[in-house]
Amino acid sequence: MTLIRTFTDGDEITGFYLLKKADLKQTNANPSKEYFDFVIADTSGEIPAKMWEVSSADKETYFPMMLVKVNGLVQMYREKPQLKIMRIRKATEEDGYSLTDFVRSAPIQPIDLVHIIKKTASSIQDGDIQSIVQFCIAKVEEKLMHYPAAKGMHHAYYAGLAYHICRMLELGEFIAKQRPFLNQDLIKAGIILHDIAKPEEMISELGVVTDYSFRGKLLGHISMAANWIIEAAVAMGMDTTSEKLVILQHLVLSHHNLGEWGSPVQPQVPEAVALHYIDQLDAKLQAVEDALDTMPDNESWTSPIRVIENKSIYRMKRENTY
Amino acid sequence: MTLIRTFTDGDEITGFYLLKKADLKQTNANPSKEYFDFVIADTSGEIPAKMWEVSSADKETYFPMMLVKVNGLVQMYREKPQLKIMRIRKATEEDGYSLTDFVRSAPIQPIDLVHIIKKTASSIQDGDIQSIVQFCIAKVEEKLMHYPAAKGMHHAYYAGLAYHICRMLELGEFIAKQRPFLNQDLIKAGIILHDIAKPEEMISELGVVTDYSFRGKLLGHISMAANWIIEAAVAMGMDTTSEKLVILQHLVLSHHNLGEWGSPVQPQVPEAVALHYIDQLDAKLQAVEDALDTMPDNESWTSPIRVIENKSIYRMKRENTY
Amino acid sequence: MTLIRTFTDGDEITGFYLLKKADLKQTNANPSKEYFDFVIADTSGEIPAKMWEVSSADKETYFPMMLVKVNGLVQMYREKPQLKIMRIRKATEEDGYSLTDFVRSAPIQPIDLVHIIKKTASSIQDGDIQSIVQFCIAKVEEKLMHYPAAKGMHHAYYAGLAYHICRMLELGEFIAKQRPFLNQDLIKAGIILHDIAKPEEMISELGVVTDYSFRGKLLGHISMAANWIIEAAVAMGMDTTSEKLVILQHLVLSHHNLGEWGSPVQPQVPEAVALHYIDQLDAKLQAVEDALDTMPDNESWTSPIRVIENKSIYRMKRENTY
Amino acid sequence: MTLIRTFTDGDEITGFYLLKKADLKQTNANPSKEYFDFVIADTSGEIPAKMWEVSSADKETYFPMMLVKVNGLVQMYREKPQLKIMRIRKATEEDGYSLTDFVRSAPIQPIDLVHIIKKTASSIQDGDIQSIVQFCIAKVEEKLMHYPAAKGMHHAYYAGLAYHICRMLELGEFIAKQRPFLNQDLIKAGIILHDIAKPEEMISELGVVTDYSFRGKLLGHISMAANWIIEAAVAMGMDTTSEKLVILQHLVLSHHNLGEWGSPVQPQVPEAVALHYIDQLDAKLQAVEDALDTMPDNESWTSPIRVIENKSIYRMKRENTY
Amino acid sequence: MTLIRTFTDGDEITGFYLLKKADLKQTNANPSKEYFDFVIADTSGEIPAKMWEVSSADKETYFPMMLVKVNGLVQMYREKPQLKIMRIRKATEEDGYSLTDFVRSAPIQPIDLVHIIKKTASSIQDGDIQSIVQFCIAKVEEKLMHYPAAKGMHHAYYAGLAYHICRMLELGEFIAKQRPFLNQDLIKAGIILHDIAKPEEMISELGVVTDYSFRGKLLGHISMAANWIIEAAVAMGMDTTSEKLVILQHLVLSHHNLGEWGSPVQPQVPEAVALHYIDQLDAKLQAVEDALDTMPDNESWTSPIRVIENKSIYRMKRENTY
Amino acid sequence: MTLIRTFTDGDEITGFYLLKKADLKQTNANPSKEYFDFVIADTSGEIPAKMWEVSSADKETYFPMMLVKVNGLVQMYREKPQLKIMRIRKATEEDGYSLTDFVRSAPIQPIDLVHIIKKTASSIQDGDIQSIVQFCIAKVEEKLMHYPAAKGMHHAYYAGLAYHICRMLELGEFIAKQRPFLNQDLIKAGIILHDIAKPEEMISELGVVTDYSFRGKLLGHISMAANWIIEAAVAMGMDTTSEKLVILQHLVLSHHNLGEWGSPVQPQVPEAVALHYIDQLDAKLQAVEDALDTMPDNESWTSPIRVIENKSIYRMKRENTY
Repeated sequence: MTLIRTFTDGDEITGFYLLKKADLKQTNANPSKEYFDFVIADTSGEIPAKMWEVSSADKETYFPMMLVKVNGLVQMYREKPQLKIMRIRKATEEDGYSLTDFVRSAPIQPIDLVHIIKKTASSIQDGDIQSIVQFCIAKVEEKLMHYPAAKGMHHAYYAGLAYHICRMLELGEFIAKQRPFLNQDLIKAGIILHDIAKPEEMISELGVVTDYSFRGKLLGHISMAANWIIEAAVAMGMDTTSEKLVILQHLVLSHHNLGEWGSPVQPQVPEAVALHYIDQLDAKLQAVEDALDTMPDNESWTSPIRVIENKSIYRMKRENTY
Repeated sequence: MTLIRTFTDGDEITGFYLLKKADLKQTNANPSKEYFDFVIADTSGEIPAKMWEVSSADKETYFPMMLVKVNGLVQMYREKPQLKIMRIRKATEEDGYSLTDFVRSAPIQPIDLVHIIKKTASSIQDGDIQSIVQFCIAKVEEKLMHYPAAKGMHHAYYAGLAYHICRMLELGEFIAKQRPFLNQDLIKAGIILHDIAKPEEMISELGVVTDYSFRGKLLGHISMAANWIIEAAVAMGMDTTSEKLVILQHLVLSHHNLGEWGSPVQPQVPEAVALHYIDQLDAKLQAVEDALDTMPDNESWTSPIRVIENKSIYRMKRENTY
Repeated sequence: MTLIRTFTDGDEITGFYLLKKADLKQTNANPSKEYFDFVIADTSGEIPAKMWEVSSADKETYFPMMLVKVNGLVQMYREKPQLKIMRIRKATEEDGYSLTDFVRSAPIQPIDLVHIIKKTASSIQDGDIQSIVQFCIAKVEEKLMHYPAAKGMHHAYYAGLAYHICRMLELGEFIAKQRPFLNQDLIKAGIILHDIAKPEEMISELGVVTDYSFRGKLLGHISMAANWIIEAAVAMGMDTTSEKLVILQHLVLSHHNLGEWGSPVQPQVPEAVALHYIDQLDAKLQAVEDALDTMPDNESWTSPIRVIENKSIYRMKRENTY
Repeated sequence: MTLIRTFTDGDEITGFYLLKKADLKQTNANPSKEYFDFVIADTSGEIPAKMWEVSSADKETYFPMMLVKVNGLVQMYREKPQLKIMRIRKATEEDGYSLTDFVRSAPIQPIDLVHIIKKTASSIQDGDIQSIVQFCIAKVEEKLMHYPAAKGMHHAYYAGLAYHICRMLELGEFIAKQRPFLNQDLIKAGIILHDIAKPEEMISELGVVTDYSFRGKLLGHISMAANWIIEAAVAMGMDTTSEKLVILQHLVLSHHNLGEWGSPVQPQVPEAVALHYIDQLDAKLQAVEDALDTMPDNESWTSPIRVIENKSIYRMKRENTY
Repeated sequence: MTLIRTFTDGDEITGFYLLKKADLKQTNANPSKEYFDFVIADTSGEIPAKMWEVSSADKETYFPMMLVKVNGLVQMYREKPQLKIMRIRKATEEDGYSLTDFVRSAPIQPIDLVHIIKKTASSIQDGDIQSIVQFCIAKVEEKLMHYPAAKGMHHAYYAGLAYHICRMLELGEFIAKQRPFLNQDLIKAGIILHDIAKPEEMISELGVVTDYSFRGKLLGHISMAANWIIEAAVAMGMDTTSEKLVILQHLVLSHHNLGEWGSPVQPQVPEAVALHYIDQLDAKLQAVEDALDTMPDNESWTSPIRVIENKSIYRMKRENTY
Repeated sequence: MTLIRTFTDGDEITGFYLLKKADLKQTNANPSKEYFDFVIADTSGEIPAKMWEVSSADKETYFPMMLVKVNGLVQMYREKPQLKIMRIRKATEEDGYSLTDFVRSAPIQPIDLVHIIKKTASSIQDGDIQSIVQFCIAKVEEKLMHYPAAKGMHHAYYAGLAYHICRMLELGEFIAKQRPFLNQDLIKAGIILHDIAKPEEMISELGVVTDYSFRGKLLGHISMAANWIIEAAVAMGMDTTSEKLVILQHLVLSHHNLGEWGSPVQPQVPEAVALHYIDQLDAKLQAVEDALDTMPDNESWTSPIRVIENKSIYRMKRENTY
């Protein structure tokens, strides 16, 4: 199948793709006619597509997040490529494709990512901390299999959140070895818990966040995770005011570092400082890596990347990989 | 007894006062000698005091937050009055004074303030909300009798927090009547809960905050109050994710309005917007009123007031009270 | 008549509405044709409307701010409803409607609002202050009958400014009773004068601000009101540098509180602090109330509200009015 | 007379100087003794001075802003030079000195500066503008003879305000010639009026501002100057809402450019833009020049200069004046 | 030829203009048709133009930055004028026009501007500074003939950069005479060097910047100019750490004044302070003058001007040029 | 020897320490007497010390950065411990101590740190980049042996800069392995070069920065390092505008990330993003580690730490090292 990232003006394309958007619109003519304004996607990117002749049956057939087989022409419109659809049909089971073949995913299998997270939780030596972490994982274990880490900032794809946690755990392990004054249990717990309530903060399907939830808007994932820690402690009969509990909550509450970024308190234990910068390092570098992975082959600069102040990143010429 | 606010250069003073500070210092001479650097206070204000001759017995006698009888001379030092102590002794039971006679207090008896708060809680019609509010009040009822509302920003005196809550309740009742679309239960609950964890955030004695607590620093009173709401819900078997619970937490979490002022989320229900501005109005006006109450009689401008961007407030000439 | 707020996809509508906008546009076709891009409105909201067949006579007939009788179909366009006009005619006198039946208004009659303001002015006990306030009211009395309080921030409707002043006067009366150290004359004068020059700052018709005036742009309503106070004082032979005059100007100049919000000085008399927060409280709560009043019945979140940092407000489920 | 700027550790000094401060203090010993903590000054700078033996007569003799003859020793104290006074007496008329010999002054005679300003006013061709400018000058003509331009930011010396205006007029004349689209009358009027109310905003003696006035605090010099323009217009029977009047007020109101710098509106006529940047250029360069003029001869860096973000300025080595 | 600035609704126009943009677009109809979306320009402004009938030959004929002869009708579209093209042809040599007749230019011939800059460089008395300045001019001399000073902020036209430098040199000469403590060589060198690398930072044709260069994005013109100074010094065998070299670099590095405006260090020699404010004054006033020059004759307010915080400038009524 | 960190009120101490400060001061008495105001230090911390009896010989004997043997008493002064010196003498060679025994140092020998840096430089595979890095190291190799990384922010001790670079190289190596899309040569070069000019920016002795250099103030270390890269390129005959050179400069110029933090451009290649966050992570965590290392044993909170917004860090109770 031709990857969307490689579509070039004038190509005739035939293949299976995901219908990411499917808006029925009217031409601005008199009398106006209906047409479909699609976006089709695969793991390499996405492209707008127009279907000018729309029958009544078509209107009952095509909806977002459906797989289709398409035949069309790549044309330039306002300096950007789009696809003019000539033929289209719904994909059937016999075609043998599944939705996840067409959405961007973490490069490691979700099941393996969740396994790593659970194994790390089990390795926490302090029993109370271990129990709280496991209580919180249990709340979202199923969603960890596919939730992205954010709506559009970074790791915005299938299982992106679990992938973010796993990469941070690698980095956290290295840092804790390099600086033995850091408490390994707290590093592990902080990394696993810091974004653990994100799957309840956002509404997501196939790695794409469509909205924030009611609780996400009124509480935010930071306060929700703090709630879960208290719930866990109460459920297990721990003292909710013990140093251990307070520090666990503090790790979550402070991990955005500043009030204007959503943290009601600032990092004041060593592991909280480490957590914030590990999170930053992973999120920013992943955003850069993702932007490079999805840019068209013939460009030198990525699209603007939100988490690095909307800067574009330059890709060195291939021969110059010193 | 002469009120400290009226002390004038050259006055000889005799009376009972509170020793607010009592630092033993050494003169910067050779050989250096020890002297007491006191601050004495009454409800009208405070003044530095020096005691130049200090015996060994004195060093074992005078400590902060003790009542003393003092005889001394008011002198100017660097354009500010201070008291040169000539005679001093500890107050005894027979003198008939109690500490609370000398600390600034809310103008209403603490017991009455707490009574108003509890009565208002009882008037909340939704049973769940009422129970949660009562659970939280119970956590700090004893401390509500004397805690200030803040370290120095506003209502920084004996029972200042309870007084702040009660004035806000008056204002909240008026606003809820003026604008019937507001939910009265939520207004009452929001006002009572918004600062309810402050007594655990700060360490205070006789209305003076000396420091923030461990939990105060690592969690902050906003997150602590959010915790209590969850604890209450779990204890009473409520659903911690119900709309009711979420909104109660939201009222507390958002009442500082902006992230840089400590709120992890911004007001997004009508009562949260009302709560923030009722809190602002009461805190700012009280800070102004307190500054006017404690300024020396012969001044036209108060000291700079922190909560209104360190501005001083002008007091109109008496005859001009149009 | 069917309220616009209740229009639903597929409805056929017949009724009288206000033509709020009437742009003659050309279709983006070849040859292009002219069509009317209308916005029709009533007190419950507004909706775009398209009229595809436009005769020469039509072009001479339909203009903004005119009443029309309309027959049309509600259709969805880009996920928003719009009206496809099938028949339309100008409303006549015999139809019995007046423009003010179709614009959002303060819930109290303008004449009553202005009466309240004037009566309050008369109750100011200091003769000089009373005269200055009356001088300023006289400048805009006619416009107070219909001007909104702002272009779009809050109270943006017919007589919104007078309504804003009256609600503030209620609140100001309560606050002045709750805190007797505040000077009632200054509270009343400050509330009436703070936005008194807004009708000269903006150009408005039927409660809708279309632009700022020349003086509004170069001076702003705050400086204009300050000018009027001086003019009043000169006209009445008062000393323009007296404490009274200075404080009256100060109330107006400082009521936006901060330089970046347009106040050249910050509040430095108690009544100026009160005025700013009374203004805030009324403006924010009114903006929330207005947004709730005009949101479609089947939504849970209002549109973003500018004066509360573009946050949307959540409306509780009806059954949950605890 | 030895200039204070050249005082060196170990020098014995005899000469006439100004007593800029004269605080009677007590040594921190037991028993404490009184001593005088002076600051003495001349046009080249100032230096702290201590007088350890103080008689009762001395206490009645020495006060700030008095001329004295001093004999003393320059000593280093905390890495800074100070003068240990051995002998001191009040200067008498026979000594032949006047206070203005010892305060920093504009390099041009005040009377000449005021003459330039008045002559420029007379050269304004539009009669109304000329009259308004002259009305405002008349309000402060006497104070223009000696007032500084600011409390400490720039031109903080005798007749500094008039000097600032005159240098700006030179620059304004050049700019108006370089860019003929600028209106010369408005440039002249804007420069003369922009700070014209500063003498009423501040309380100053001998070029040193000691405080802001009541009106300075509650209105600020910008609003005060705007008031005067209105008063002038009323007095002369002009229309206070004419374009001319509005633009004159706008020039004054907008000359600080941004709200956070005190301007309620931003420059929106060409001459207002020019005025702001002419003001900036003159104020910043004068602050730099003044700092260089008063720095000790053996330093390479000036003290931090407030108006250029507290940066110090480097003085090139003398031989390197390329 | 009719100036574009004077085009009025209904005019039929015939004349030569520059094709500034030439986008081939498709109508949003079914079947869609191709049409040309042009922008045509002359020195007085620009206007959109539509050409609805497009032949295959046309598509090979019309490209941006080409001169054409046009016959068309001025029509209003969304309240703005646009040209409906009826006839069009490419201009030929015989028509006798050149591209520079149609682009906005500095009001002085480029060759004269560059001559002024080079003559000023020769007048620098310090040999080393003179050589460095000449080395840097030589790098961009050809581009100085036509480069604008910025992408859109100010002096955004043919030879705008050279014009900006020359006006600043005039102002710098005046300031250096008014304040003799400033070093004339440094003022001249600073003005010539401050933006000298802009032609390498941007990609420009005929006075219009289309993009930033690779080096422009990764280094910025400030660091590039600093590099050139070092290169010059090395090439001429000077000590790169001498005071002279350091100050030259400092002038360039600091001329944006603040870090957030791109300067890694802040002005700390007198000439650097002067340079920044001379640059500001010239850039802002030129932006105002340009906006007034290109506004339609019947408007009172210019378009928003980016360099003065997007404010519009008011143009006084003609008769009122006091 | 008793570590200063363990000094307790009432201890009599005898041992060798470093005289970090030695100010001769005068008592504020009459007649005043001279005394020495010392600060003595060892690797565990520092403490003020007073020597009340000072002979003429003493004044010629004791100077900062000298080793002394001291006998004294620990006393509390204003709630902080200080040492009252009873006996003191200069340390002699026979005592066998060297200055570096008493200053805080990186935990690895300076010679080993510099060896690691040079070895890493040699491992850079691109010959041009390797040469440039080696050219820059050679400029400061001797100073790398002892310079701190900053004046007080982080790594402010003997060889702190080299230590900072080495820890970053470890982290950089890990990150480059974790994310193979990063270019290892650029990561290594960026880390070594980013602060390479700091030893020329600051003036430092024994790990303590006393001031910034002339070039440090006027250029800053970022621009100085950019200069060195150009000098290296010129010296080696490379093209100063090649992609390689531009990216090397970009890494240095952008490593502070934002303009307000001193970077004239923002990171726009992947390795620049990595470099900034590696730098942050190492600097912040080292600052936390250093603060914990030097806090008194009986405290729970460190002093405020500048690089983490002046927050203090909480040290968990020992038994609670989960």
